[in-house]
Amino acid sequence: MAGNSYGTLYRVTTFGESHGEALGGIIDGCPSGIELDFEAIEVEMSRRKPGQSAIVTQRKEPDAVQFLSGIFEGKTTGTPIGFIIPNTNQKSDDYSHIKDNYRPSHADYVYDQKYGFRDYRGGGRSSARETASRVVAGAIAKQMLPEIKINAYVSSVGPIHLDTPYQDLDFSKIESNPVRCPDEKSAAIMEEYIRDIRKQGDTVGGVVSCVIQNVPVGLGEPVFDKLHAELGKAMLSINAVKGFEYGSGFSGSEMKGSEHNDLYNPDGTTKTNLSGGIQGGISNGMDIYFRVAFKPVATIMQTQDSLDNKGNITPMTGKGRHDPCVVPRAVPIVEAMAAIVLADFYLINKTY
Amino acid sequence: MAGNSYGTLYRVTTFGESHGEALGGIIDGCPSGIELDFEAIEVEMSRRKPGQSAIVTQRKEPDAVQFLSGIFEGKTTGTPIGFIIPNTNQKSDDYSHIKDNYRPSHADYVYDQKYGFRDYRGGGRSSARETASRVVAGAIAKQMLPEIKINAYVSSVGPIHLDTPYQDLDFSKIESNPVRCPDEKSAAIMEEYIRDIRKQGDTVGGVVSCVIQNVPVGLGEPVFDKLHAELGKAMLSINAVKGFEYGSGFSGSEMKGSEHNDLYNPDGTTKTNLSGGIQGGISNGMDIYFRVAFKPVATIMQTQDSLDNKGNITPMTGKGRHDPCVVPRAVPIVEAMAAIVLADFYLINKTY
Amino acid sequence: MAGNSYGTLYRVTTFGESHGEALGGIIDGCPSGIELDFEAIEVEMSRRKPGQSAIVTQRKEPDAVQFLSGIFEGKTTGTPIGFIIPNTNQKSDDYSHIKDNYRPSHADYVYDQKYGFRDYRGGGRSSARETASRVVAGAIAKQMLPEIKINAYVSSVGPIHLDTPYQDLDFSKIESNPVRCPDEKSAAIMEEYIRDIRKQGDTVGGVVSCVIQNVPVGLGEPVFDKLHAELGKAMLSINAVKGFEYGSGFSGSEMKGSEHNDLYNPDGTTKTNLSGGIQGGISNGMDIYFRVAFKPVATIMQTQDSLDNKGNITPMTGKGRHDPCVVPRAVPIVEAMAAIVLADFYLINKTY
Amino acid sequence: MAGNSYGTLYRVTTFGESHGEALGGIIDGCPSGIELDFEAIEVEMSRRKPGQSAIVTQRKEPDAVQFLSGIFEGKTTGTPIGFIIPNTNQKSDDYSHIKDNYRPSHADYVYDQKYGFRDYRGGGRSSARETASRVVAGAIAKQMLPEIKINAYVSSVGPIHLDTPYQDLDFSKIESNPVRCPDEKSAAIMEEYIRDIRKQGDTVGGVVSCVIQNVPVGLGEPVFDKLHAELGKAMLSINAVKGFEYGSGFSGSEMKGSEHNDLYNPDGTTKTNLSGGIQGGISNGMDIYFRVAFKPVATIMQTQDSLDNKGNITPMTGKGRHDPCVVPRAVPIVEAMAAIVLADFYLINKTY
Repeated sequence: MAGNSYGTLYRVTTFGESHGEALGGIIDGCPSGIELDFEAIEVEMSRRKPGQSAIVTQRKEPDAVQFLSGIFEGKTTGTPIGFIIPNTNQKSDDYSHIKDNYRPSHADYVYDQKYGFRDYRGGGRSSARETASRVVAGAIAKQMLPEIKINAYVSSVGPIHLDTPYQDLDFSKIESNPVRCPDEKSAAIMEEYIRDIRKQGDTVGGVVSCVIQNVPVGLGEPVFDKLHAELGKAMLSINAVKGFEYGSGFSGSEMKGSEHNDLYNPDGTTKTNLSGGIQGGISNGMDIYFRVAFKPVATIMQTQDSLDNKGNITPMTGKGRHDPCVVPRAVPIVEAMAAIVLADFYLINKTY
Repeated sequence: MAGNSYGTLYRVTTFGESHGEALGGIIDGCPSGIELDFEAIEVEMSRRKPGQSAIVTQRKEPDAVQFLSGIFEGKTTGTPIGFIIPNTNQKSDDYSHIKDNYRPSHADYVYDQKYGFRDYRGGGRSSARETASRVVAGAIAKQMLPEIKINAYVSSVGPIHLDTPYQDLDFSKIESNPVRCPDEKSAAIMEEYIRDIRKQGDTVGGVVSCVIQNVPVGLGEPVFDKLHAELGKAMLSINAVKGFEYGSGFSGSEMKGSEHNDLYNPDGTTKTNLSGGIQGGISNGMDIYFRVAFKPVATIMQTQDSLDNKGNITPMTGKGRHDPCVVPRAVPIVEAMAAIVLADFYLINKTY
Repeated sequence: MAGNSYGTLYRVTTFGESHGEALGGIIDGCPSGIELDFEAIEVEMSRRKPGQSAIVTQRKEPDAVQFLSGIFEGKTTGTPIGFIIPNTNQKSDDYSHIKDNYRPSHADYVYDQKYGFRDYRGGGRSSARETASRVVAGAIAKQMLPEIKINAYVSSVGPIHLDTPYQDLDFSKIESNPVRCPDEKSAAIMEEYIRDIRKQGDTVGGVVSCVIQNVPVGLGEPVFDKLHAELGKAMLSINAVKGFEYGSGFSGSEMKGSEHNDLYNPDGTTKTNLSGGIQGGISNGMDIYFRVAFKPVATIMQTQDSLDNKGNITPMTGKGRHDPCVVPRAVPIVEAMAAIVLADFYLINKTY
Repeated sequence: MAGNSYGTLYRVTTFGESHGEALGGIIDGCPSGIELDFEAIEVEMSRRKPGQSAIVTQRKEPDAVQFLSGIFEGKTTGTPIGFIIPNTNQKSDDYSHIKDNYRPSHADYVYDQKYGFRDYRGGGRSSARETASRVVAGAIAKQMLPEIKINAYVSSVGPIHLDTPYQDLDFSKIESNPVRCPDEKSAAIMEEYIRDIRKQGDTVGGVVSCVIQNVPVGLGEPVFDKLHAELGKAMLSINAVKGFEYGSGFSGSEMKGSEHNDLYNPDGTTKTNLSGGIQGGISNGMDIYFRVAFKPVATIMQTQDSLDNKGNITPMTGKGRHDPCVVPRAVPIVEAMAAIVLADFYLINKTY
C-alpha cells in the first residue's frame, strides 16, 4: 500500500501535490444521514490556512472545498464523499532553484532516490499542503461524533512553555490569539518570540497539546491497534512531527508504580488520570490527553548549503512564503487526525 | 478489524491469553528461501522471558516455540509460518482475587466494559505475555534483513538517565548486564536502584533507546504510512509504553531551523542527523534512532485500593511474580517490532 | 470497509453518483516513471460511453477525464493519481417518477433499507456510470503492463452464441462492429436481434469472453487470493453480472480427470489448457480465459409494476435513455477490471 | 498480502501444509459472548473429512480441532480464536515420486516457479487439506448467525444433473446419502456413477448448489464488495472450483428484461427471485442461491505423463488415497465459506 489512506471503517484517502491542479480525497465509510454543517467545515479550513495573522506572511489562499459526491440534500448518503480543493497558485511561483537541488531536511533527496524523479514544485506530495484534505475529513468526523469534544492548543513555542495543567485552562480562549495558546500571558510571550524569529529569517518548533473529552468507554482495539498507538501514528504522520506522548508520557517513565497507578472511584472513574484516559489501549471514559512535538520547518530565509543532483554543495536561500512557526496552524490538523482516529474506532466498536 | 494483526506485506497476526493453553501467531508474507537460524530465535525468546536475573523473581518459563508450517528443510517456503508457544503455567496460579476485581491501571475494567466479560486469568489478552509472539516474528524479520543492524538498550530507569550519545556507546556491552545498559557505570546504578524498588514492593518505569543502522534509502511511504509513524505505532502498541520520539524528538521542538537542518555531504549523507535518519517519512540512509518511554508496571506488591464489579472499593495486594522494572525485558520487544516494521516497508519498497 | 476500493498494492478507490457533480477516483500504488498515453485512456473511455451506435440511444457524453495529481511532465510520479469525470447532465433529467418508487430489479429498495434514504437521481451510486472510473484505472493498469494483452469480446447476446474457440478468432475485428463480436456473421445476427429487442422496448443479456495473453508465471496468491478468485470477484462487481467461469468452467464439471488434466510439454507449457492458464490459483504462463454472464438491464421501456415507499404497487414505464443491450459496452469494463487485478498481483509478485 | 486471510471484520487467517505438523488458523473479530457448541463444530469437521463412505477410500483422519485462545468458560471472549488441527499422517507417506516431478494440473510447477522451491509432501500448501481450517471458521460463523440457514448440496456429478428447483427439495435429506444430494433417486444414480469412475481409476467433477435463507436486508457493500462478488471470490478460492453463478446465472444472460425483472409484493418481497436475493450487491431479504462448479481432481490412478524439474516427460501413476469425486466433501466447505462471508458483512452492516 502506498500509504495514502488512513483508517479501516472511516477511511480517508488523499491525493494532490502542493502545486498541481488540485488536492482532494475520498472519505469512505461515513455513515448515512448526517446533516452536514458546511460552515463548520469552512471554519476548520480557515484555521489551517497560511497567512492568518501578522506573525506569518500574508497570503490569500481560499482553500474552498468542493464536494462532488456522497451528499444529497445536505445529508451524507453513506456512499463515498469525494472532494477537491483547487490550487489557485500553481503557476505563480518559481521553482528553478529547487529543480535540481535538494534542500536540507526536506524530502527532496529521498523522493528522487525512491521514485527516480519528483514533482519539484513546492515540495510536491511531501508539502504540508496535503493536510488540507485531512482537515476536511476531520471536520466531517467531528460532526459524526458531536458529543466528543476535541481541543488542541499550542503549549510551547521554542523554549517558551505553558506548564499550566489543561484542567486550569479556558479552551474558549484558544482562538483568541494568533498562536492558539489559551493562556494570554504565555501567548503574548510566544508571539513576541515568533516575531523575533521571523526577523532573523529563521523558524522555530513547538508543542501542540490535545485534550479529548466525553469519549465513551471501549474505543480502541487490543493488541496492535491500541487507541493511543493509532493516535500516535496519526500525529506522527503530520509533517514535521518528531514525538508523541500521552497521559504521563516521558515523565511517567521516572515514576514508581505506587505513584502512577490511578485509583478507582466507585463509579469506575479514577481519582487521578496519569493513564491519559486509556488503559490497555482502550478508552476508559476519562479525558484523553497527549502532546505532539513539532520541529522547526526546514525552509528558512537564511542562506544554507544544499546538495544538487550532481553531487555539488551549493548555497541556497529560501524563497516565497516564510512561516516562522507552523505550530499554531498545526492545531486544527492535530484535531482533525484525532477526530479521524476516533471516528474509525467508534465504527469498529459498533461491531461488538 | 479487531487489531490483532500488524503489517501489510510482512503481516503478523497473534493470538493467545497469558494463561490459556498456548500463545502463537501466523507470519504471512515472509519470502521463500530464507535459511532460518532457530538458535537465534531462541536467543531472542530467552532475552524476553522473565526471571533472567537477580533483579527479578526467578521463574522457569521455557517459552519454547513450535513451528507448525511454512518451513521445509530449514528454509522458509513463502507460505504462512504458523507457530505456537505453549503456556506451561496455566493451572498453577490463583486468580480469585482478580476475578471480580478491577486492578488499578490495568485493563480489567475496560475489557469488562467492552466485551461484557473477560478471561480474568493473569490479564488474559492484555498481558505482556502476548509479546512473546512478537519476538518470534521479529526474530524472523531480522533474519530476512541481515544487513540491517538493530540495537536497543535501556537509557533510563526511573530518575537515572544515561545521557551519552549512542555513537559513543559500545553496543556489544548491552547484554553484559541485567539492565541492558551498555554503559557499565550507569548499569550498576540502575541495577542498584531497581533492587531498592524491589525491596519496597514497588515498580519503576524507564526508557528504551533504539538505533537502526545500514537501512537503505527509500523505506517508508508518504503520506500516512511514514516510516517514523509506523515505528511510533509499533512501539506504542507495546504494553506500558507512554511516549515515542525519534531524531531530535521533543527537544527538537525547542530548536531553530538554522540549528536543526541537517546539511548535506556531497555523497547524500548529512553532517548532522537531527532528522533521525528519516526525511518526509522516508529513510535517508543515515542512522535511525528513537526513544520509547515505559511507565512503571501496575502490579505492585504494596496494598492499593481496587474496584470490584459491584462498585465497592476494596484493598488489594499484588500476588505472584514481582517485576520491579520490565524495561530491560522490553529491549528485545522494541527490537522485534522495529524489525517487523522494517521488513514490511522493505517488501513494499520492492514494488517500485 | 464500505467497499469502494479495489486492490492491495495497485489500489483503486472510486466515488460519485450518476447525477452528482462528478465521478472520480484515486489510484494509489501506481509505480513512478510510467509515460502515460492519454489518448489511449480516451479511447477506452469512448469505448465505454453510451450512444456509440444505432443500436443504442444516441447521447452526447464526453466523459472527459481530468487528472489532478500524481503525474508530472507526462509521467507518473508514484504518488496517488486523483482524477475526476464531470457529470454534464446532472440537472437535465426528471426523476420524480422514481423519487418515491422502487423500480423492479434495481437497487432502489435495498439502498433505502440499508442507508435510510438515497440519492434517487438516476440510480445514484448504484448506477453503472460508476464504471467510468474503473475504465480510467484499468487504462493506466494496461499501460503499466504493456507486455500483457487483454482482449474481451461479446460471445453471446441473449440466445445467440458464438461458439468458435478464441484461438480461431481475429481479435483485431472486435471493434469493427457495434456489438464487439469478432465473428462478423455472428455480429450481424446479434445486432439484428438487439434492434428487435429495442423495438420491443425490452432489454437482453449476454456473455463477455476475455482472453489474457503473455502473463508471466507466478501471478496470484494462495490460498484465498487465488488469481481466478480475484478475477471472479472483480467481474462479479460489475453491474448486472450474474456468473463467472474460467478455463473449462461449468462444462469442466462434467468431465473426467483423465480428460481434463493438461499434460506438460518439456518447456513447462501444456498441450491443452482446460486449466485456463491458472493452476492452484497461480498463473502458469498459458493463456488465461474466462466468461462473464450479464443479465438484461432492468430499465425497460415497457410498463411494469413498481413498489412505492408506502407499500403501494404502481405501474411504471422507463424514461430517458434506452440501452437494449449493455453487453458490448461492458467489454472495456471487463478488460479494465482484469487489468486492475493483474496490476495488483504483478506488484505483489515483485515482493518475492 | 500473501493471501492467507479472508474477511475484514470477521477475519480468518490460515496456515499449514498437508503433511506438516499441523494446520490451523486464527479467527479475529468474532464478537464476545457466543456460547460455542463444540459438538456442532466436530460435526462440520467430520462432514469434510475423507473416507466417509464406500465411494471413497477409507481413511482414519480424526481432524480434531484444538482451540488455544479466545474462548473462556465455553464462550467467545472477543479476542482472537487460535486453533490447530494436528496432522496425524505426516510421516506415513512416500513422496519420492513427486519430489522432482510436476503432476499435470496440480500446482507443483507454479509453486516451484513462484517460490523457488516447495514443500513437495502431498501438495503442501496447495492441498485441499487447508480447507479444514476454513470449516472451523465457518462453523463458528454459523453459530454467530443462528437465524441464517445455509444449505448446500450436490446438484450434479459429471453428466448427471438434478434439475429440481431448490424449493421442491427437502434439505433434511442432504446428509442421508453419501453424495449429499437431497433427491434420493438422483443420489442413487450419482453414487453408481462415482463407483464406476472409481473402478476406472478416474475422477469426475460436479456442481454444488447452495441456498441461504433468512438473510436480513442490507448485507453487502457497493461498489466493489458486492455480496455476490465476495461470495464468488470465496467459492472460487476453494480448490478445484472453475465457476460461480448466482440467481439466474448464465441462463439469465439469455433472457429479456421483461422476463427477468422481479416484481414486488407490497411488503418488499418479490414475486419471482431471478435476482437470487441480491440487488445492486446488497441482500434484499429473499433467498440467496448460487451454484459452484468443481472440475475433476487431478490425481487419478491411471498413468499419465508428468514433467520433471529437468524438463523430461515421465509417466506417473497416482498413489495413495483415491477420491473419485470430491464434490460431496466440498458441500461443508461451500457452506463454511458462505458463513464466513455473511459473518463479515453482518459485522460491517452493524457500523451503519
